[in-house]
Amino acid sequence: MCYDMPLSIRMRRVPATFLPPIALDYSAKTPMYRQLYDWFRLAIVTGQMRPGQRLPSTRSLATELKISRIPVSNAYDQLLAEGYLETFIGAGTCVARSIPDDTLSPLAGKRQKELQQTVEKVGPRRMSRRGMALTQLPTQSWLNIVGAFRVSLPALDHFPIGVWSRLVARHSRRPARGIMAYGDAMGCLPLREAIAEYLGAVRAVRCQASQIMVTTGSQQGLHLSAQVLLDPKDRVWIEEPGYPSARQAFIGAGAQLIPIPVDHEGIKVAEAIRRGHNARAVYITPSHQYPLGMTMSATRRMLLLNWAVRTGAWIIEDDYDSEYRFGSRPIASLQGLDTDARVIYVGTFSKVMFPALRIGYLVVPKDLVPAFSAARDAADVFSATLYQSVLADFIGEGHFARHIRRMRMLYAERRKALVKAIRVQLGDVFEVIGAEAGMHLVAMLPPGVNDVALSRKAAQRGISATPLSACYLNPPGRGGLILGYGGTNAQEIHDGICKLKMCV
Amino acid sequence: MCYDMPLSIRMRRVPATFLPPIALDYSAKTPMYRQLYDWFRLAIVTGQMRPGQRLPSTRSLATELKISRIPVSNAYDQLLAEGYLETFIGAGTCVARSIPDDTLSPLAGKRQKELQQTVEKVGPRRMSRRGMALTQLPTQSWLNIVGAFRVSLPALDHFPIGVWSRLVARHSRRPARGIMAYGDAMGCLPLREAIAEYLGAVRAVRCQASQIMVTTGSQQGLHLSAQVLLDPKDRVWIEEPGYPSARQAFIGAGAQLIPIPVDHEGIKVAEAIRRGHNARAVYITPSHQYPLGMTMSATRRMLLLNWAVRTGAWIIEDDYDSEYRFGSRPIASLQGLDTDARVIYVGTFSKVMFPALRIGYLVVPKDLVPAFSAARDAADVFSATLYQSVLADFIGEGHFARHIRRMRMLYAERRKALVKAIRVQLGDVFEVIGAEAGMHLVAMLPPGVNDVALSRKAAQRGISATPLSACYLNPPGRGGLILGYGGTNAQEIHDGICKLKMCV
Repeated sequence: MCYDMPLSIRMRRVPATFLPPIALDYSAKTPMYRQLYDWFRLAIVTGQMRPGQRLPSTRSLATELKISRIPVSNAYDQLLAEGYLETFIGAGTCVARSIPDDTLSPLAGKRQKELQQTVEKVGPRRMSRRGMALTQLPTQSWLNIVGAFRVSLPALDHFPIGVWSRLVARHSRRPARGIMAYGDAMGCLPLREAIAEYLGAVRAVRCQASQIMVTTGSQQGLHLSAQVLLDPKDRVWIEEPGYPSARQAFIGAGAQLIPIPVDHEGIKVAEAIRRGHNARAVYITPSHQYPLGMTMSATRRMLLLNWAVRTGAWIIEDDYDSEYRFGSRPIASLQGLDTDARVIYVGTFSKVMFPALRIGYLVVPKDLVPAFSAARDAADVFSATLYQSVLADFIGEGHFARHIRRMRMLYAERRKALVKAIRVQLGDVFEVIGAEAGMHLVAMLPPGVNDVALSRKAAQRGISATPLSACYLNPPGRGGLILGYGGTNAQEIHDGICKLKMCV
Repeated sequence: MCYDMPLSIRMRRVPATFLPPIALDYSAKTPMYRQLYDWFRLAIVTGQMRPGQRLPSTRSLATELKISRIPVSNAYDQLLAEGYLETFIGAGTCVARSIPDDTLSPLAGKRQKELQQTVEKVGPRRMSRRGMALTQLPTQSWLNIVGAFRVSLPALDHFPIGVWSRLVARHSRRPARGIMAYGDAMGCLPLREAIAEYLGAVRAVRCQASQIMVTTGSQQGLHLSAQVLLDPKDRVWIEEPGYPSARQAFIGAGAQLIPIPVDHEGIKVAEAIRRGHNARAVYITPSHQYPLGMTMSATRRMLLLNWAVRTGAWIIEDDYDSEYRFGSRPIASLQGLDTDARVIYVGTFSKVMFPALRIGYLVVPKDLVPAFSAARDAADVFSATLYQSVLADFIGEGHFARHIRRMRMLYAERRKALVKAIRVQLGDVFEVIGAEAGMHLVAMLPPGVNDVALSRKAAQRGISATPLSACYLNPPGRGGLILGYGGTNAQEIHDGICKLKMCV
C-alpha cells in the first residue's frame, strides 16, 4: 500500500510514451472508447499502471493514437466515474491513489495476454466437503449415450405432442399475470389439486393439496428432503443395490450412507435393526425396487413404519415407475399406511410425460410443509409456471390418464419383446429378473463377468446399458445390465440385443 | 412380535362376526373391491386385526355384506399378493403371521376415523439444523402483496408477449428430441453461448460458454454457490444492509453470516479486514448495491479482489438489475477485473424478462465447473428445456436487446415520476437515496419511525412497500421503505404515494 506517500513523489509527470503500448483494433465492432476504457482498466488492475501514475492529456493521447478526442474523453470520464482515475487541478488525470498497489500481486507485472492463460491454469482450490464429495462420485458415462436401452427414457415419439403443444400455446398466448409474475414455492394450486386427486385414487396416498410441493423433477424432491431432514454425518439407510442419484442427494447434505441389502421382499429391515444400524432416515423404492424390480412385502413395510415411529426416523418413499405394472394390479404406496406422518413421498412426471418437462412432486407431512417451503424458497424460489398450468390442464382434460393407459400397453409389449430377444439370443448368458413392471429390467450376468467393462464395450456400439454394479456401494456379488425399454422400440430392441451379444 | 407362537394357538377360528364393522359406501365411485381392500389393509396396519387372525371365507363375507363374491375375491387376492394375508390348506385365509403385531403401536386400537386427526395433530419433530434455521427466518409478508411498489416486479404488460408466445409455439410444436429428452446440467448450449456473448459485450465479463450454467433464477445460483463452496460454520461476509434471499441461501448451507456495513463506496472491505473478520466467501452487489443502490468504487473492488487472492476466499458477485442505468454508462462487472478466477458471477432473466420464466445463470471459474455441474445434478439435474431454447432465440433475434432498451426508458420515466411524487407529497418525510439505476429506490424515513409498522399499514391499503430494516441483520440506525417502480405505472405511483402519505 502507498497511501502515506507524499503527493509530490507520486505526482511526477510521466510522459505519455511511458505507457505500455496501447493496441487498438480500428476495425472491431467494439467502440473505440470502450477499447480504451478496457485497456486502462486492465492496466491498472494488473499493476502495469501504478497508483498516482499520470495519464497523458486526452488531446495528446488522441493525437498519438490518431483518433478523435471524443472517445478518449469518454473513456477517461467512465474511468473517473468508476474511481479508477482521479483529477487534480494543475496535475491532470492520474490513477487513483486509493487503489492498492499490491492489487492482485501474484499477477502484477504479468503481461495482459498471459492473464487468460493464468485463469485457465489454476489448480484445484478449496471447495466445501460436500462439493468435493459430489465431484468425486464416479461419473455415469453410460448416461451420456442416448442409444438403445437408455434407462428412464420414455417413448418420446408416442407422446401426444399435438395435444400438448396446443395447451402450451393456449397458456402462453394468454398474457395471464399468473403465468408471468412470481409464483408459490409449493407450486400452482390447480396442479397440486390434480396431483393430490391422482395420488389418492391411483396410489392410495393419503394427502391434501396443501401437502403437495411441485418440484423440478424427483431429484429436487430428494435434494430438498435431504436438506430439510438431515444434518451432516446423519446416517441414512439406502437400498443395496439402489438408485445412484438418490445417493448424490444425501451426500449433498453431508449424510452418511448405510447400504442395507435387499432380497425378494425388498430392503432387509429386520437385519438392519438387529445390526444396530440406527439412522435418521431411510430411502426406499417399495413399489418397484430400483434397480432389481421386486415389490416390498407388507411385513417389511410395517416393520419399517414401526421402526420409524419408534425411533423418530423419516421414510423417503420414491414411488418411481409406479404407473406401469403389466401383470397385476398396482401396489399401493407405503405412504398410505403411515399413520404417524413419517413418510415423505417422492414422485415425478419425467418418465410418464417427458424428462425435459422437469416437473415432479413431493407429498410432505403437514407439520413439515413450512420447512420444505422455506427450503424451496432458499433453493430456487419456485418452478416455472407455464408447464405447471399446462400439465394441470393435461391431467384435468383426461389426456394424462389416456397417455398412461397407452404407454402401459406399449411398454408391456416392449418388455415382452426384450425378454424374448434375450432368451433367444442370450438365454445362456443373461438371466432376467424383476417384476413385470416399470420401464427397465435387469439382466444378471454369469459370475465373474465385469458389467462395467461390458457396458463400456456396448457404449462403443451405441448401446446405453447401465452396469448393475454402479448401483452398489459395496462390491456386488454378481454383475448385471440394467436395460431400459421405454424409449426403445421393437426393432431397436432386436438390433440392440444382437449388438450386445457381440460384446459378450 | 409373535413370530414364535405355535401355529395352533394363532390359527383359531374366529367367526366372521368378530370382525370390526365394515362400512361400505354402495354409492361411491370407488370400486367395491378397493373399499374392501382399503378397509382390511388399514385394519391390519392399525392392529384392529391381529397377525394370524382368520378372515371369513369370501362366500360368507359376500353374503353378510350383501354384495357379489367377485369384489371380495379380488380384494383378498390383492391383499394376498401384497403380503397382508396368507392362506393355509384347510385353515382358509388369515392375516399374515409375519406382520409385526406391535405395528404402529402408539396407534394400535385407535379407531380409523381418529387416524387422520392424529396425522394432523403431530407437533414439531426433528429436522436438520439448516431446516430449522430456514423455518425460523422472519417471513417477508410484504412480498405476498402484489400491489404498487412490489420490489423486483417488472412491467409485465410491456413484455412482448406476442413475439414470445410465437417462439414458444414454434419450439413446442416441433417434436425435437432435445426439447423432450434429458438435458445437460449446465444448460442448453445455444443459450449458454448467447449469455456468454451478452455478458462479454455488455458487462465486461470475461468467460466462455463452457463456464455458463443456466439456473432456475439467481436464487439457485446462490444456493449452488453456497453448497459447492461453503461448509457448515464457514463465515461469509454479507453487505449490511443486504439482500435477504442471499442470506437464506447461505444459511441453507449452514454458513455463518458476518454483516459488513456499506457506505457510499459499497462494502467496507478495509474495515472488515482490519477487524480480522476472516471469511471463506463474500457476497456483494457491486454494480447497484441491494437495497441502497450505490456503486462499489474501483478501490474497494480491488481491495476485495486482493483480499480474496491473498486468503483464497471466493467472491460471489450478484449483478442484479445491471441492465438498467439511466444517467450514466453501465458499470463494468467485478468479474472482469478478476485475474485469479475468484469470482462466481450470478445473474438472472427474472427481472428483465418475467419472474415465472425461472431462468438465471452463473459464470463459474473453469476449475469449479465440474463441482457446480455435479451439485446441479444432485440438486435437480437440469432446467426445463423449452424456455431455454425459446430464450436463446429471443436473444439471438434481437428481441432481448430491444426489450431492454425500451424498459430502460420506461423505468427511467417511472423512477422520475416516483421521485417527483415523493418530493411533492412526502418531501418533508422521505429522503430518496441510491443511484439512478435499477427497478427500485429507497426512501429513508425520519429517525425513530418504524418501517415495519409502516409497511404493515401500507399493506392494508394494498401497497407493497418493503421495510429497509428487513435487509439488516443487526438493528438498523434508521428505517426506510424500498419502493419498486418496475411494475408500477405512473397512475399507480401517484395513487400509491397518496396512500403511503395517509399511512405516515
